[in-house]
Amino acid sequence: LALALGVDLGGTNVRAAAVRLEDGSFAAARRELHADRSPGAVVLGVVRVAREAAAAAGLPAGTPLGVGVAAQCRGGRVLNAPNLAWRDVPFAALLAEAWGAPVRVANDLSAAALGEQRFGAARGVDDAALVFVGSGVGAGLILGGRLHEGAGGLAGELGHVKVGLRPGDPGRPCGCGQRGCLEAYAGGVNLAARLREDVAAGRAGGLAALVGGDLARLGAATVEEGCARGDADALALWDEVGELLGDAVANLATLLDPACIVLGGGVLLGSPRLEERVRRRAEARVLEATRPGLRFARAALGDGAGLVGAALLAGPP
Amino acid sequence: LALALGVDLGGTNVRAAAVRLEDGSFAAARRELHADRSPGAVVLGVVRVAREAAAAAGLPAGTPLGVGVAAQCRGGRVLNAPNLAWRDVPFAALLAEAWGAPVRVANDLSAAALGEQRFGAARGVDDAALVFVGSGVGAGLILGGRLHEGAGGLAGELGHVKVGLRPGDPGRPCGCGQRGCLEAYAGGVNLAARLREDVAAGRAGGLAALVGGDLARLGAATVEEGCARGDADALALWDEVGELLGDAVANLATLLDPACIVLGGGVLLGSPRLEERVRRRAEARVLEATRPGLRFARAALGDGAGLVGAALLAGPP
Repeated sequence: LALALGVDLGGTNVRAAAVRLEDGSFAAARRELHADRSPGAVVLGVVRVAREAAAAAGLPAGTPLGVGVAAQCRGGRVLNAPNLAWRDVPFAALLAEAWGAPVRVANDLSAAALGEQRFGAARGVDDAALVFVGSGVGAGLILGGRLHEGAGGLAGELGHVKVGLRPGDPGRPCGCGQRGCLEAYAGGVNLAARLREDVAAGRAGGLAALVGGDLARLGAATVEEGCARGDADALALWDEVGELLGDAVANLATLLDPACIVLGGGVLLGSPRLEERVRRRAEARVLEATRPGLRFARAALGDGAGLVGAALLAGPP
Repeated sequence: LALALGVDLGGTNVRAAAVRLEDGSFAAARRELHADRSPGAVVLGVVRVAREAAAAAGLPAGTPLGVGVAAQCRGGRVLNAPNLAWRDVPFAALLAEAWGAPVRVANDLSAAALGEQRFGAARGVDDAALVFVGSGVGAGLILGGRLHEGAGGLAGELGHVKVGLRPGDPGRPCGCGQRGCLEAYAGGVNLAARLREDVAAGRAGGLAALVGGDLARLGAATVEEGCARGDADALALWDEVGELLGDAVANLATLLDPACIVLGGGVLLGSPRLEERVRRRAEARVLEATRPGLRFARAALGDGAGLVGAALLAGPP
């Protein structure tokens, strides 16, 4: 029975599991919260949960480790992990030293795309894109049957493609330091910020009422609920965000001609009315010749996709 | 001495040459104009020039043939070749039957990207995009060291990514039947049409004067010359087209993280002021982390890139 060891490293916790390479299944993942987000402390946390997962599955010391990180990664270095507050950390080297065996690090959406392509919604497809809209926006790309990470490991940064702006509009500022990024309009964190701005400016009163005036609760779920109730502000916002995301997805598909686009992430999967707008817009705007060969699917592996994909990165021991 | 046989099939003529796989050089290509653009007649023309090229190089009958076609191609079929007026022609099968040996067909920009990556401006790079702005707009993608043609052979259709539009603007109609495609704004044929529209509407008088009122001569070269003379209409048009192309190139780079973007095509290479705007805009708008690893280069193989890449498609005999 072939098993591989995968780790999913997020901003608040780390999970590890031994994944069956036959079907992508895994026993309950070991989880640990970061008490301390410094690289040294996180490395030790990863080693602890990975050791537990390996021991539970009977995997020997020296088993290679695959790690998906919510970060921009390049050649084993974590260039920028906003939710860990890391900049240019030689993470694969640090972890391999502590773990005592080879470590492969990749962006978490790249890992999730691998998982979905091998065992999930894009099974059997050589060209697939995972489009993820959660707190942020990103993509993982499987092209020609292989993970496409780009020359510097930065491929798939769909959240930072620039949206078309009216002349004179500098675009919303993005966490990356630039303006006009898709994520600044459509990512969950920025959506919530936009709603708070609107309410503070005296707009979107119906949405403020939905959260009883508690602005901290405003978010994608509020907009989805507002749409269900026919709230005009909510409908206008989902129309706009649906167009921006749909155009970005259409352009990705026109450029890459994937057979399957997997839609994932809490914002998209939790907002059927937004998902419907994204699909409709993307289907209307993708090159016509490309459309018949393109299928949309909802992510099938849930939040296990990254863990499974990380194990695939590591490969069999 | 390893040689391979490449064919470049355009809308008005076909060229063939035996290409040295060591350095991409080839003796003068054989050329034939299409007297008749029907698939049957073109197949015979391709066989004639390919036979001449093979004979001149001492290549035997049965040598595989690679063909780059200015068309959307899928699995050996030419789905849509506007300048040949073909729709869904089983071209590889027809040609292989007449040629008597295996034939591989690909989009001409895919072939040109292969040529530039092996022997030209993107030599030594595993992830490269050729961005072509000539009569139309398109791209060829080399990802992970391999040609990326997509699930249905339609990858690289950069001319049909949609540009951001102001609310209420349906976008310019494109030859593909959709609206708002990049090519409708930035392709050479559409640029000339836009200039004629402007002049007909009483605008762009300075540009009309540059061609002595002969509207058929209006085109990218007129705009470039207008910019050199400080014509305000010309400067505004290159600013707009530079932004649209630059944003599309930036978004391609943010999504794919190539090490090299090769700029090619008559409009770009013939308009240094436009090329400069495209590079500047793309560099300003690509994800910041991606920028240091990205190099821009001008296409180095001229109009031989497609022929050389077609030979690479065929591989050694």
